[in-house]
Order: sequence, then C-alpha cells, then structure tokens
Amino acid sequence: MAKDKQIKFGAIIHGVGGSMTTWRHPEVPADASVNFEFYKTQAQKAEEGKFDLVFIADGLFINEKSIPHFLNRFEPITILSALAGVTKRIGLVGTLSTSYSEPFTVARQFSSIDHISGGRAGWNVVTSPLEGSALNFNKGEHPSHPERYKIAEEYLQVTKGLWDSWEEDAFVRDKESGVFFDPEKLHTLNHKGEFFSVQGPLNIGRSKQGQPVIFQAGSSEDGKNLAAKEADAVFTGHETLEEAQQFYRDVKERAVRYGRSEEDIVILPGISPIIGSTTEEAERKYEDITNLVTIEAALKFLGRFFDHHDFSQYPLDEPFPELDGIGSNSFRSGTDKIKRTAKEQNLTLREVALRSATPRTAFIGTAEQVADRVQEWFERKGADGFIIGSDVPSGLHDFVNLVVPILQERGIYRQDYEFSTLRENLGVPIPENRYTAAKSKVKIDA
Amino acid sequence: MAKDKQIKFGAIIHGVGGSMTTWRHPEVPADASVNFEFYKTQAQKAEEGKFDLVFIADGLFINEKSIPHFLNRFEPITILSALAGVTKRIGLVGTLSTSYSEPFTVARQFSSIDHISGGRAGWNVVTSPLEGSALNFNKGEHPSHPERYKIAEEYLQVTKGLWDSWEEDAFVRDKESGVFFDPEKLHTLNHKGEFFSVQGPLNIGRSKQGQPVIFQAGSSEDGKNLAAKEADAVFTGHETLEEAQQFYRDVKERAVRYGRSEEDIVILPGISPIIGSTTEEAERKYEDITNLVTIEAALKFLGRFFDHHDFSQYPLDEPFPELDGIGSNSFRSGTDKIKRTAKEQNLTLREVALRSATPRTAFIGTAEQVADRVQEWFERKGADGFIIGSDVPSGLHDFVNLVVPILQERGIYRQDYEFSTLRENLGVPIPENRYTAAKSKVKIDA
Ligand SMILES: Cc1cc2nc3c(=O)[nH]c(=O)nc-3n(C[C@H](O)[C@H](O)[C@H](O)COP(=O)(O)O)c2cc1C
Ligand SMILES: Cc1cc2nc3c(=O)[nH]c(=O)nc-3n(C[C@H](O)[C@H](O)[C@H](O)COP(=O)(O)O)c2cc1C
Repeated sequence: MAKDKQIKFGAIIHGVGGSMTTWRHPEVPADASVNFEFYKTQAQKAEEGKFDLVFIADGLFINEKSIPHFLNRFEPITILSALAGVTKRIGLVGTLSTSYSEPFTVARQFSSIDHISGGRAGWNVVTSPLEGSALNFNKGEHPSHPERYKIAEEYLQVTKGLWDSWEEDAFVRDKESGVFFDPEKLHTLNHKGEFFSVQGPLNIGRSKQGQPVIFQAGSSEDGKNLAAKEADAVFTGHETLEEAQQFYRDVKERAVRYGRSEEDIVILPGISPIIGSTTEEAERKYEDITNLVTIEAALKFLGRFFDHHDFSQYPLDEPFPELDGIGSNSFRSGTDKIKRTAKEQNLTLREVALRSATPRTAFIGTAEQVADRVQEWFERKGADGFIIGSDVPSGLHDFVNLVVPILQERGIYRQDYEFSTLRENLGVPIPENRYTAAKSKVKIDA
Repeated sequence: MAKDKQIKFGAIIHGVGGSMTTWRHPEVPADASVNFEFYKTQAQKAEEGKFDLVFIADGLFINEKSIPHFLNRFEPITILSALAGVTKRIGLVGTLSTSYSEPFTVARQFSSIDHISGGRAGWNVVTSPLEGSALNFNKGEHPSHPERYKIAEEYLQVTKGLWDSWEEDAFVRDKESGVFFDPEKLHTLNHKGEFFSVQGPLNIGRSKQGQPVIFQAGSSEDGKNLAAKEADAVFTGHETLEEAQQFYRDVKERAVRYGRSEEDIVILPGISPIIGSTTEEAERKYEDITNLVTIEAALKFLGRFFDHHDFSQYPLDEPFPELDGIGSNSFRSGTDKIKRTAKEQNLTLREVALRSATPRTAFIGTAEQVADRVQEWFERKGADGFIIGSDVPSGLHDFVNLVVPILQERGIYRQDYEFSTLRENLGVPIPENRYTAAKSKVKIDA
C-alpha cells in the first residue's frame, strides 16, 4: 500500500537569531553563532524529530549596522561538514552564492560533504543581495539583479555538469587486475559559456544520492524561474495561507512548463512557531520576544533589506517614505512586498519597521493549534513542508517534543527515517548521470 | 623547571595513498580516499598518539593519468571540518591554493574551522603546481612560478589582515545594556594591492589561537622565502639527514633575516616509517609495497612532477632524458632535484622512475631503530618534528603503538597534550591583533 504524502521539515539553525535583538533573550547563549555545541545540539534535536534537514543561511558583507548573528558566525561549508560528523540521517543544507565563488570549488565542496555524510548534502543557491559584497571579492561592481540570475543559471549548469564527471560505477577498484577506474566512465565537461569556462573532470566521484540537492530561495520572477527550472526545493516565506497557496501553485506550474513534474520540486515556507501549554502562554512567549525590539533596532533591520539604507533620517510617524529605486538591486522580492504593503495599508515607517522586525505569524498557540495550522497549510497546498526557524532555541525543542508526535499520530509525518539520503527523504528524484543516460538511450534505440 | 624541547608530529591522511599503486595493497580499503570512517579512524589514532596535527594534501587538476587518490578524494575544507567534530585535541591542517581562490572566503573558512575546533585549524598555503588547474578556474593561463608566489604573498597579507578585523574582546554581549560589540574594536581592512582588492571586515571574530596556523610546502627559493617571512611551519621532504640539516638551517636563517626568531617557525619533514618486529620483517613490509609498483605506474608517477609529461616515449634503460624547460612552471624544487640527481648519479630513466615511485627512506626497521633515527634527525637539527605519511594504514598505527612510547620514555615527546590549541602545542607564537598592538604601543609611548 502506498503511503499518503508526508510533510517535510527542516530546521534553520542561526545562532543568536535572525533579528537585531533576539540575542538579548535570556534563553539564547550570547555566543551561539560561533558555538559548535549549540549547533550540534540543535541539529541532533532536529534529527530526533526525524527532520529532513538542517538549514544554514549566509551573507557576504557586514558593517557596524548588521544583525548581530551576521557579524560573527560560522561559514556554511565548514559548519555543515562538522555537523556531518556528528549526525547520522538528517540532511545538511547550506547557502552559497553563485555571484562570488568558483563552480569547480563549490561543486567539489558540496560533493565532498555528500560523500562524508553518505548522501545528505544540499546547496541553497543564492545570488547575494547586498551590493557591498563586491567590495570583499575583487570586483568593481555588484552585478545587477537580472545579471546575477543569468550567472546563477550558467553556474548551475557547470556544477551539474561537473557532478556528472564520473558515472555511478566508474570506480572498479579491482586489486587483482590493477584496474582502479573505467576510463569510459570518466567524462570531461569542457564548458565554455558566457560567464564560465571550466574544463573538468571533477576530482570527486558521484555520491550516493547522485548529486547534492539544490535549494533556491529567491522569490522574484527570475528567482522563481531559476527554481522551477533547476531546483529540487524552494525555501520561501509567507504571512498568510492564501499567499503561500498562490506561490505554491505558481512555482509548480512553472516547473511543469519546464517539462518537469509537480512532485519534482518541494516548496518549504519558513515559519517560526511559538508553542505554549495554553494559548495565553504562547502569547506571553511571543511578547517576550517582541518586547526586546527597540525602534532603532527595527529601523536597522528594515534598512538591511534596502541594502543598509539609513531609515533613521525619516519621520517615524508619517507614511512610509518614497524610496524610488533604493534597494531594488538587493532583496528585490522582499523590498517590493514591503513597499506594496505599506501603500495598500497606509502604514507609517514605525509600523513597517516593527512589523518586519517581528512579523506576527499564524503559528502561535498550543501544540495542537500549531499542528492544525501546519496540517492545514500542507493539505490545502500552501506547502510540502516547512523550515522551522525558532527565535529562541526552545522553539525547536518544543516543536519536536510536542508538535511532531501529534503529526505522527495523524499519519502525515514519518515515525522514522525511511531512507538514508536527503533526496529520498524529500521524495525528489535522483538525477541520472547524463552520460549513462545517453548510453542507455543508444541501447534502447539500437 | 622548563621542559626540554619536544618533538612535534603530524599525520598525513591520504586515503589510498600518495603513489600509483598502494591502493592494491591488501591492507588498504580501496575506497579509502572517500571513506569518512577511514579518515576518522586515522585521525583518532593520531590523537591517541598525542600528535600535533593531521594533514590533508590537495590538488586542482586531474586527468586519466593521475594518481588514484587524486581522482576521487575529499576536499580539504570539508574533511577538516568533519574531523573537527569527531576529535578533541589534535590540530587540523589542510592544503588550499592561493592561485585559484578568494582570500575573503578562505580566511572565513579557516577561521570558521578554528572556531568549530576550539583553535586547532591550520592552512597549508600552496600555489598549485599543475598548469591544467587554470582550465578549471576560468583563467586563460596558469600564472608563472614567480608570479604565483607574488600572488601568494599578497594573498597572505590580505588574509592575515581580515583575521584582525575583530580584536580579541570585541564581542561584549551584554544583554542588560544591549551592547553586542564594541565598534572601536571592529576594523575595516580596505586592502587595495596589485592582485587583490578586499574591503572587509571579515564576518567572523578572532579565534582562540588568534589566527589559524600557516603552513608552507614549497621548497624553491621563492617558496623558502615565503615560508621564512609568513609561515609558522614548513612541510618538506628529504632523503638524507645532511639534506634535512641544510634545509633546516637555510629556512631558520631566512626567518631571522626577516626579523623573526628561529623558534617562530617549525620545520617538519615528511617521512614514511615502516616498522617490523625485526629488521627483516620491516624489509619484507617494504618489499610488499615496492613490489606493487610496475614500470608503467612509475613512469606515470614521475610524469606528474613534470606537469603530466609522457615519459613512455623514451627508452627505459638509457640515461635520463634531457627535458629542457618541461615542468619548470610546476613543482620546481622537485623537478630540479630529480634532474640534478639523475645527472650526478648517472641514472637511467627506469632507475629514476622506480626510485621516485618508492623512495627508500632511512626510517625502515624496528621501532627502536626508527625511534633512534627520529631522535637523531631531531637532535642534530634536521627537523623540529615530522609529518608521518604511511603508505599503508597500519604504518600510522605501528608508529603510535610502538615508536611513540619509546620517545615518551626518552623524555623527548609529550605524554599528553599540554594545550588546547595547535599554536600552543607547536610552540609557535600567537600573533597579536595589529590594532590591539598599535593601541598598547600608543599607551606605552604616552
Ligand atoms: C526564505 C529566504 C531565505 C533566504 N536566504 C538567503 C541567505 O541565506 N543568503 C542570501 O544571500 N540570500 C538569501 N535569500 C535571498 C535571495 O536568495 C535573493 O538573493 C534575494 O531575495 C534577491 O532575490 P529575489 O529578488 O529573487 O528574492 C533568501 C530569500 C528568501 C526568500
Ligand atoms: C612536502 C610537500 C608537500 C606538498 N603538498 C602539496 C599539496 O598538497 N598540494 C599542492 O598543490 N602542492 C603541494 N606541494 C607543492 C608546492 O606547494 C609547490 O606548489 C610546488 O612544489 C612548487 O613550488 P616550489 O617550487 O616552491 O616547491 C607540496 C610540496 C612539498 C615539498
């Protein structure tokens, strides 16, 4: 009997938190962003909850106005690899920018994590929103938003090509005959494109899940197209079910237009559940977090989306300022949405800033209420699963201890891992090696 | 009472081995180069032996003639990070090329390993010998040997500058007052040089050992100068004590000329000890390894030093061919030495090839004999310690189980780790943050 479709879960681990102020919460270790024990404990807790994956975000430019977590945090390739050594089944997904790296190195590093972890690696492909990144990487100018996505697309072609350098059974390793590998199963890519020229072959073989899982996290038109064409999973964020449903439909339809099936790509909105033994307790916990936010911190946080624009120059209680193009070469989908909402709802700068610093989500309540909401979004096609981002560390622990058992009871979430690779757990296909595929095609045609 | 100077040890872990044929040895797991359990076991064995460090080599270009280990192996940043999670005290040193990477990323990754491991990271700075590397990295041409070293030097200045972005006590993390960091202790590098333009600051703070340890492994004039100026440790290789002594003296003198002290840099030749319960057993073990070598494999191995030059075109039993400039933009110090020795000793191609494939070393014998030899090189200033490279996995185990206790008994090797950081164990200085130093200088002057 085929099992019904199951919900997927990821846990974003981000040290002292994704806001200006959560580091001040009594429960957060103030050095969490560079504390390996913290990362290890959170990852192992997520694994106890049979989560599909942990997720590591990233950025390439800081200044004195940046979010505390961004100032001093682990680099994704290193922390994912370290977590590979201390976990067994959970997927390991990290963010890396195609605008400021070399495809040969990045293909190798993710493949190497895939080998170290036995097929659990995933790469969240981003293009780097912040203009300042260029200053750290010997580049005169940050490429424009459309250019960044053109680079990303070619970059992914190169990477996927390099990952096919060795066919599955290329390494014969026959000690008797002295044959280490079959030269017919080694392939040189010879890519020469608009942005990259990479010969290959890659100096690491095919891993257990074929290729690392590709995540994508941009929500602009270009971002959605890249996801629909190349990604196995999308990390996104929505305030309402309706918004989530619309995004879900949109990306799945685009995937079908690119000749893929709806099941080939999973949509995972990020949520920050806050769980109490009563609704009131959950509300109190939410307030403990929002009360940490000062208006100064909220303005800085807002500024971040607009490429560190200084919002302290505007009056707080007047309508949200006209910004023209400011920040449009940055987090485009995010800034467009902020501007649109401010206009539609006639919000002041103060209101916009405080809302974006601690958005009120639909996932605050008792474990039963949160489980209901999760099930609703899942069954009504707003999500294939969720990335759980907890503002305080106990958020993840509460979710695993209290919400997970309810979802298991309801038969919509796994009791245990069924597979050893991330791809299989997520239910996305293992890509066939292009050369193996070509050969079997020739055989069929003949 | 001050302890006498102690020997240092590293273990190079390199999967199926550094030659064409060791993978065929019955004892070697044929997938060792991508087998995490293998790396973990070797690293933990070295840690049991209180070694200072494990060492990971690397390369950026392969073709069908490459050494088996090079075709399919872990990438250094990832395997070091994974080992950080499963070891406690041993240093973690990996090779990364300054010719094909970005200083911002590399500074971050090594610093991140340093934070994950509690101050145990080291970086072996190489410039990439193989011409083909350029083809994998969007570059028209492999930079020339002197140019590569000029790039490496500026690269190290940038990296060390980025590592000073945050002073030691920059992160205040006072939850009461809401002060996360002291802006006076955050510094922007603003490097603009011949090859690099990197603004900073780095998005990770100072680690427990100040900065990751710098290793250098090139033995040409330029290589030795770079080491003497910038490195904390040198990985080298010698056949005789006299050669080792000469190199040792040379590098220490250069360091002094650059205004450093002799103790600021440790010299660690690589050796491959083969240990038997009798001299005869050790000899038999050596033969088991050399017997694996075919002349074809030996020619390929030799070709590798000369940038994959095809030696099968020459007669085997005539004098070593005249090669003019072939390979001189590659492993220069290695190729110079091979050509010189061939001429001096009137060797045929066959002799040169077989010798370079399995050099006979002075470290074959009983544990007592090997310990004597180690002590001799150490006391007669041929080495501050050694990087143990075992052709077969039991080589390291024998060394730890049998040779280490003898050296401990003699009082020239530690009984247990005295320090938690690699720098302290190696006895090289913790670099003071340049801005902190400048401030304390101002205070003293005032
Ligand atoms: C849920 C989510 C998570 C993201 N995580 C990262 C991240 O960790 N690092 C990063 O550089 N960009 C991240 N981004 C930004 C996007 O990748 C992208 O660079 C930016 O949003 C601009 O692209 P867009 O206009 O397509 O959204 C994220 C975006 C979303 C929606
Ligand atoms: C003991 C030793 C180990 C080395 N390990 C590496 C390595 O792992 N990867 C690499 O690219 N080069 C390695 N090299 C090569 C050098 O870094 C250098 O690129 C090459 O030898 C040319 O420089 P040179 O002429 O100064 O020796 C090593 C060299 C020596 C002597």
